[in-house]
Amino acid sequence: MTQYRLCFLGFGNVGRALARLFVAKTAELRELYGIEWQIAGVATRRLGWLANTAGFDVPALLAGDTTATTSRSNDIHEWLAKTQPDAVLETTSLNVETGQPAIDYLQAALQAGAHIITANKGTVVHGYEELCALAQAAGKRFLHEATVLDSAPVFSLFRETLPAVKLRGFSGVFNSTTNVIIEAIETGRTFAEGVRAAQELGVTETDPSNDVDGWDATVKVCALARVLMKAPLKPSDVRREGIRGLDGGTLRAARGEGRPYKLVARARLAANGSISATVQPEQLAATDPLASVRGTSLAVHFELDMMPGLTIMSHRPNLQSTAYGLLADFVNAVKK
Amino acid sequence: MTQYRLCFLGFGNVGRALARLFVAKTAELRELYGIEWQIAGVATRRLGWLANTAGFDVPALLAGDTTATTSRSNDIHEWLAKTQPDAVLETTSLNVETGQPAIDYLQAALQAGAHIITANKGTVVHGYEELCALAQAAGKRFLHEATVLDSAPVFSLFRETLPAVKLRGFSGVFNSTTNVIIEAIETGRTFAEGVRAAQELGVTETDPSNDVDGWDATVKVCALARVLMKAPLKPSDVRREGIRGLDGGTLRAARGEGRPYKLVARARLAANGSISATVQPEQLAATDPLASVRGTSLAVHFELDMMPGLTIMSHRPNLQSTAYGLLADFVNAVKK
Repeated sequence: MTQYRLCFLGFGNVGRALARLFVAKTAELRELYGIEWQIAGVATRRLGWLANTAGFDVPALLAGDTTATTSRSNDIHEWLAKTQPDAVLETTSLNVETGQPAIDYLQAALQAGAHIITANKGTVVHGYEELCALAQAAGKRFLHEATVLDSAPVFSLFRETLPAVKLRGFSGVFNSTTNVIIEAIETGRTFAEGVRAAQELGVTETDPSNDVDGWDATVKVCALARVLMKAPLKPSDVRREGIRGLDGGTLRAARGEGRPYKLVARARLAANGSISATVQPEQLAATDPLASVRGTSLAVHFELDMMPGLTIMSHRPNLQSTAYGLLADFVNAVKK
Repeated sequence: MTQYRLCFLGFGNVGRALARLFVAKTAELRELYGIEWQIAGVATRRLGWLANTAGFDVPALLAGDTTATTSRSNDIHEWLAKTQPDAVLETTSLNVETGQPAIDYLQAALQAGAHIITANKGTVVHGYEELCALAQAAGKRFLHEATVLDSAPVFSLFRETLPAVKLRGFSGVFNSTTNVIIEAIETGRTFAEGVRAAQELGVTETDPSNDVDGWDATVKVCALARVLMKAPLKPSDVRREGIRGLDGGTLRAARGEGRPYKLVARARLAANGSISATVQPEQLAATDPLASVRGTSLAVHFELDMMPGLTIMSHRPNLQSTAYGLLADFVNAVKK
């Protein structure tokens, strides 16, 4: 049995779902993997850098009670020194342009001897090589499964199950907000009603224009290309077109034919090793597996040298699914 | 760099594709995993138990030239003693009822100190617990990724990427022959023409009634249930109905509505831990991802406690894809 000290960096919807999931899976983690855990630190912009070196009472923490805090730090370095985490679980919000301050935080966590596990795709797109190198030097893991397809294994799939394979290209439906908006318009509702429907489902980025204008999908394409194709694709390299220009009549006619529009993300390696990537609305063939992706579901289709096609679909993932992506990363980081 | 001695048990289409794949991936295996390999033994019913302790010349072997054979053994024990394999790659044909003689062969291989890797689902359905226990005692691996969805990761997906998850049920299109036959009938051809089309694609079992009457899918359901749900499901426990009773008019009307019939395999755990499983023709909803599985493609949809649904689809896998399932198992067995 090994006792692990966890620090939560960010404690919004995903962070809180993750804390609940650790509680729910306590017995299984102990029995299957010999894992005991405690939450030694929690940090958010609102709460500051909180530590409880004996471990927080999680139900109290989830209820907003931080009276058990044994120390408040002034910055992440002091916080890490106090909490001595084995793993830092990072769920702060996305900075599309720079990935900061999350990258600096994760660097500090690695230097303090923690595995780093993140749901924040900005850290992968803007800090991947750097964080991998630091993690390797420290003998720790940098894992980020929840960044693209929530809990559906994509990065671990390639890392752990597909040795000596070459990824030639991929396509995907990576953004649920646009999917929900398009389906709302297909059934006669307005764009604004579609945005509200997505917000009610809790799937939109803090600023919905990150979804609608294709930024979320663009950052995901870059994350996959960087990790799985070793291609230093930046968001500005992706030909990006959002869904604002789509016409209701066109969408309804396309759906009527069984050939719906989706915001589709694509990347492809050319023979010379260069990569081209797009995020744009596309009308899909009825036989395209991506055409069956409905509502908040997500999917990616890989073209590999060893397989004509491999599709992974995550059906209507929920907050717990996203949290599970982080929990799985944690177990995979520490399991023997 | 480590040198591995391989023995091929069965050298039909899949075994030969695997030998070609080892040749094609030689440089990558060396560079990425420090793996050097040689084929020390090949055995088939026709050839007998052949060994070349210095390693066969693979192109010659593929061309049918076995003159380099340095010894011919009388049985598997003598053959294993001569060849001293690090891994035995088994691709002999399926025995639905007992899994024999493959299970006995794999036991002998484990006792001789080899990892065992198989494309033969009979060994999983009839010998899983026994082979796992022997493998664990020997400190070796028993891997069988290619048995259900060809190269698409299913067993390694759960083993390596989805810790502490509970599988509640699954459904799948596991048999390409019946898919090809149904699609032939949908386009106005006869059942017999459909069987021939599948045979020309090289996807049928040696006896096509294994496909048509649902045995192939049934054995795959049992393999998945045994490994992923720890449920000792036997082929005779599965409610099985093949596709012979399907009427052409019904199939064409269903396809016209976009709600096609498929031979669908299902298994589900009840609250009391009992498992129920079926293999039968089902008309699928247009929105069911399994409805988009065409031709020789295969798919499985998992229902997990941590995710509402996770679908894996393998698109038109070919012989090389199946061979890759075995190669991946080999690398995963020996990689550090």
